[in-house]
Amino acid sequence: MAVMHLTKHHALGNDFLVVVDVDNRHGVDAELARRLCDRHRGVGADGLLRAGPGRDGADVSMEVRNADGALAETTGNGIRCLAQAVLAAGLVDGPVLSVATAAGVCRLTLRPGSDPGEVMVEVDMGPAKLGPGQPGPMGEQARAVDMGNPHVVVLVPDPALAQVVADGSRLDAETPGGANVEFVVVGPGRDELTMRVWERGVGETLACGSGACAAAAAAHDWGLVGPRVVVHQPGGDATVAMEDGTVILTGPSRHVARIEVEVDGEAEVHGR
Amino acid sequence: MAVMHLTKHHALGNDFLVVVDVDNRHGVDAELARRLCDRHRGVGADGLLRAGPGRDGADVSMEVRNADGALAETTGNGIRCLAQAVLAAGLVDGPVLSVATAAGVCRLTLRPGSDPGEVMVEVDMGPAKLGPGQPGPMGEQARAVDMGNPHVVVLVPDPALAQVVADGSRLDAETPGGANVEFVVVGPGRDELTMRVWERGVGETLACGSGACAAAAAAHDWGLVGPRVVVHQPGGDATVAMEDGTVILTGPSRHVARIEVEVDGEAEVHGR
Repeated sequence: MAVMHLTKHHALGNDFLVVVDVDNRHGVDAELARRLCDRHRGVGADGLLRAGPGRDGADVSMEVRNADGALAETTGNGIRCLAQAVLAAGLVDGPVLSVATAAGVCRLTLRPGSDPGEVMVEVDMGPAKLGPGQPGPMGEQARAVDMGNPHVVVLVPDPALAQVVADGSRLDAETPGGANVEFVVVGPGRDELTMRVWERGVGETLACGSGACAAAAAAHDWGLVGPRVVVHQPGGDATVAMEDGTVILTGPSRHVARIEVEVDGEAEVHGR
Repeated sequence: MAVMHLTKHHALGNDFLVVVDVDNRHGVDAELARRLCDRHRGVGADGLLRAGPGRDGADVSMEVRNADGALAETTGNGIRCLAQAVLAAGLVDGPVLSVATAAGVCRLTLRPGSDPGEVMVEVDMGPAKLGPGQPGPMGEQARAVDMGNPHVVVLVPDPALAQVVADGSRLDAETPGGANVEFVVVGPGRDELTMRVWERGVGETLACGSGACAAAAAAHDWGLVGPRVVVHQPGGDATVAMEDGTVILTGPSRHVARIEVEVDGEAEVHGR
């Protein structure tokens, strides 16, 4: 057995385990992700992230496994958690970090948060690719949005009353390859959205970064909000700015714990 | 800020954080328990246990905080997790460990489990004090059982169909001081019970040690099972033996992870 070092973080209540493994000493497979993310028999998290060696000119790479073990292209909340872990591991100096994901290279800017356990991270999520309009589960206005990962944004009268689990899981299942599903209303203020989210492979979560971007992009395209939007989610607020054809997501990552687990293998693995 | 070292364990999917603090270097309050047990913003667990210095002739003491921060008298699953942590910390030599709880001193016997991450623990839970019969939420046969902590055992046709959250939370709220509520059926085999449980201050859990004892004691008193009972729970099986006026619970504890968190305070705290 080998020891694996991870850190746990959360971004607006969306929680991730991160292993920093830039020396490629360890792989992360579906079984390990399921075991570690199990909330009763494991450590517990929405997903497991591996910060691997950089590629495509980026400082590091990010591999995303959801709690069910499946690979995901990227995660707007998780990438902030990964940035905090990479910063704490001393792998970057400056406030700028580039991360290669399966959805392309992301550029991040890190700022101090409200206390030493928190970092505010601005993520250039790339362009939002808006699909054609489609009817929502109750006939609402809805549309597919590609943020590098797939989303369906549904405009509802009140997200608090939305059938997030029932309708979210159904839309997820009905979309080839699956989809994250955002249930969104405009308000309470001007240029604000309120949202609940179903995450593919996870269930309802307290917040979703790429989902906040998808919701803001769809709402902006529908003419409901301006180019800079605060997205209220059960786990807290994120800010989304649409500029020069790209989407910038800003929100916190908070350090929760350092974690050591036993894993199969022969070598000692140091993530930090 | 100080660093606090904990371990995470689970006993049939009932998961606990344990801080070994026999030097009394640290207290555990309701706020810390809530923060650490939070499954999205904290590490996540059903409860937080502190192994403090021994008293009343016992090797160590156990302080139990449920996920909501409230103190509990004892926990038949948690005490096995605490025993595994105390053993790993090198605080006891032999297979026998005595633990002072708010429900009295418990005597435990530890055996190797199925692999190095598991320990099988036999816990002398003391006598089951059976209350008078009372009607269950749907008029079923039910009764209060005091295992040092309060239980209501309800005999149902099928625990899979029981309204564990609705009826459990209501019976909990209606019982002065609260109660754990077990929904139990006899079977599938002879001297076997199948059970789901609502835990006071937690919600439905995958298993409850003192609840398995309460259920076995009530079923034995009703003449439905013999003095040695296997209790099937969603998280796995426990064995309960009633002998010489005491109740012996046997089940596993599995090590999950070592954990370091930042806590308020000035000194470095080593739990192990």
